[in-house]
Amino acid sequence: MSDLPKDTYARNALTTPTRSKERADWDRYSLHAILDAGYLCHLGFVRDGRPVVLPTLYARVGERLYIHGSTGSRPLRGAQDDQGLAVCVTVTHLDALVLAKSAFHHSVNYRSVVAHGTAYQVTDPAELRAALDAIVDQVVPGRSADCRPGNAKELAATAVIRLDLDQVSAKSRTGGVNDDEADLDLPYWAGLVPVSPVRGAPEPSPHTDVPLPGYLAGPAC
Amino acid sequence: MSDLPKDTYARNALTTPTRSKERADWDRYSLHAILDAGYLCHLGFVRDGRPVVLPTLYARVGERLYIHGSTGSRPLRGAQDDQGLAVCVTVTHLDALVLAKSAFHHSVNYRSVVAHGTAYQVTDPAELRAALDAIVDQVVPGRSADCRPGNAKELAATAVIRLDLDQVSAKSRTGGVNDDEADLDLPYWAGLVPVSPVRGAPEPSPHTDVPLPGYLAGPAC
Repeated sequence: MSDLPKDTYARNALTTPTRSKERADWDRYSLHAILDAGYLCHLGFVRDGRPVVLPTLYARVGERLYIHGSTGSRPLRGAQDDQGLAVCVTVTHLDALVLAKSAFHHSVNYRSVVAHGTAYQVTDPAELRAALDAIVDQVVPGRSADCRPGNAKELAATAVIRLDLDQVSAKSRTGGVNDDEADLDLPYWAGLVPVSPVRGAPEPSPHTDVPLPGYLAGPAC
Repeated sequence: MSDLPKDTYARNALTTPTRSKERADWDRYSLHAILDAGYLCHLGFVRDGRPVVLPTLYARVGERLYIHGSTGSRPLRGAQDDQGLAVCVTVTHLDALVLAKSAFHHSVNYRSVVAHGTAYQVTDPAELRAALDAIVDQVVPGRSADCRPGNAKELAATAVIRLDLDQVSAKSRTGGVNDDEADLDLPYWAGLVPVSPVRGAPEPSPHTDVPLPGYLAGPAC
């Protein structure tokens, strides 16, 4: 298992020089593409000196991430301060299992982005509304225009933090098996097993009496 | 988006009393089931006072997680110390998108486990070998017995950290849409869109001349 993500993420930073590393020749557009292909992130922060990692939803809007939270949650209480909250937001897509002839060269194909920085709570009502719309649309493009918008009370009960994409890096593994030459003739199956998230048939609620919207008809995941 | 994971994870700890919380009535077996259903985790640790979250692979063996790393990686350098390394390991499965009539009640169905604690590098050769086998088998059950085992040099180049499941909690959302009564007749589509990871047809390498093993023939993901 030699090819797994390490903390050698090459910086593809927007404000710092790019360092070239193997499997990290990602430009900004590739980085955006990885972020745009997902909506689930893992949000890391420090509480009492120890790390906390929680799953949540996000949206990318330009060079900024909006990350969903709750006003009752600890990360957001930290982000309410002027100093903001140090966070790490990681998005990972798994693309294939890589089965080699040797245990050592087993791996996975993946794409991931790691964004470091200081997050701040979104307090401007217009920005908050736009951010929530963006998060809804990141999951199902077009959906925010086809549901009842949040009212003032609901917006007050929801919290979003923003993180500018200043310190952001991408890493991936693609391609086939990298077995040692000496192992190639071993009598084991080797190859790739593709993995992807797949959406099943939409299941309408009992209170739905409109046709399936076009934005749910596609095979997107 | 009121139903997303917050840091209100109920403890289902093995050493501390269980605190009951809505959507957190998980017992230890449910917690194991969530861990056993995955192999990708997000590993959080603190570096220079700031959080870092990296994707990697893991295996559960009894009441312990083994997490793959590299001897060159920073988290493991920390874990080599006698004091170990404070980590948070989070495993998340996304099960469905929940589309409500109101933007506010949009959500996702998911299962997740968050494990906090101090991780240590595995140094005993027998434990390291068993841990690597477990990680391979967590991804593809049965695979570790059907490939060339790691030799001494390969084992020395691989690192694994262990985390006992002492401070571990689970959280999930299941079920349907939770719209407000007043919104039920709004003319929007509402319901669930199932999401699941799916494995595609295995793609053998050019050097594979054995049949597809039985452990790859199933629909497992």
